[in-house]
Amino acid sequence: MREAFHRDLATLNAELAAMGPLATIAISRATQALLEADLVLAEAVISADAELDERAARCAEHAFALLALQSPVATDLRLVVAAIKIAEKLARMGDLARHVAALARRRHPDPVLPPELACRFAVLGRLAAEASGRVEQALSAPSGENFSEQDQADDALDGLREDILAQLLGADPPYPIQVGVDVALLARFYERFADQAVTTTRTLDFAVTGRQPARADHPSPANGQRPTPPAD
Amino acid sequence: MREAFHRDLATLNAELAAMGPLATIAISRATQALLEADLVLAEAVISADAELDERAARCAEHAFALLALQSPVATDLRLVVAAIKIAEKLARMGDLARHVAALARRRHPDPVLPPELACRFAVLGRLAAEASGRVEQALSAPSGENFSEQDQADDALDGLREDILAQLLGADPPYPIQVGVDVALLARFYERFADQAVTTTRTLDFAVTGRQPARADHPSPANGQRPTPPAD
Repeated sequence: MREAFHRDLATLNAELAAMGPLATIAISRATQALLEADLVLAEAVISADAELDERAARCAEHAFALLALQSPVATDLRLVVAAIKIAEKLARMGDLARHVAALARRRHPDPVLPPELACRFAVLGRLAAEASGRVEQALSAPSGENFSEQDQADDALDGLREDILAQLLGADPPYPIQVGVDVALLARFYERFADQAVTTTRTLDFAVTGRQPARADHPSPANGQRPTPPAD
Repeated sequence: MREAFHRDLATLNAELAAMGPLATIAISRATQALLEADLVLAEAVISADAELDERAARCAEHAFALLALQSPVATDLRLVVAAIKIAEKLARMGDLARHVAALARRRHPDPVLPPELACRFAVLGRLAAEASGRVEQALSAPSGENFSEQDQADDALDGLREDILAQLLGADPPYPIQVGVDVALLARFYERFADQAVTTTRTLDFAVTGRQPARADHPSPANGQRPTPPAD
């Protein structure tokens, strides 16, 4: 029974790990479509998102079947519950990449961004793809020690997002209001994409260790029970 | 054992049901703080959010303990897994209300919105609070038949959000770009708040019936297994 369970759990983990690269590809291509006003690529990102949703639904069904048939406990139970949450987060990352692509499609053939903002979004897109890459890494080799690096890197992304908004608001002459709306939403999509990556890594670390991982700049709560407040 | 389980499950459901009114109060007060530039109320919404996060964490721990100690199956298992998801959604609704309040605080003593947009946000806030109220109703009396109404009402909220963005972009003379950024983000916060309410209702209906609820304007998938794509 335990052997069958661990074989099933390994399959579930492999299914989750296979979703990671799809999220990374989605945000990388969405950024490229955004920066190059590439309609074909934007359409490809939008179409590909259904596969992430379907895989997430299959992972959730698989995890549910494991709970129903094998009644895992302790670390095994934490891993299965984590799988349900992580599948949802990865699907959400795909949704957010799709939103970026949808904006590129809506403004096509015009570019969404003026050039001096586009170069900042190139960096934002790279940071988001790197966050997704760290999720891939954590899913491939869960060590319980992936959160701290992910959390620190997220500070850089948040800082860049604030810089972009400051540049947007401080421009003289001012940008058209449509640019303000598009930049605010795009920056939010990237921020939320990275937030899902942070939460995924924290969820995985917790599943492996049974302890909420400490943030790099915050000590762990004394009783080790209360989670770090969600990154949002 | 089963009797103890059902007593524990009833407690878990009561804990979840107690979170619903907190989310409704949060978005109602955040809207009032936004429209009246009320700093004290904005601070109150921001402070109160920690309680929703703590309650969500306790619900998740409680649900985990139920899985570990009682190994539920079938409907019971679906209800426990749904509780884990729903606690997270309700906490997220609180986060989004907090974001609205934080923007009111940041701009204080200035109002965030010009009057002709403020009156549209009053309606958006009411629709969001009503969506949260339907979540309260569904949590208090899970019938498996709450999704359709919630989903239809969400279309009205999405329509209003689009109207607001059209009004923002069409204004002559144009609004300052700061207004564009604030309105785009605020509209997104309300939209996402309502999306969480829709997902919560769908998750609860599924837990009760074992079938993914059909959207009002879309037939249920033939095999009844695949979930409706997430509302985002």
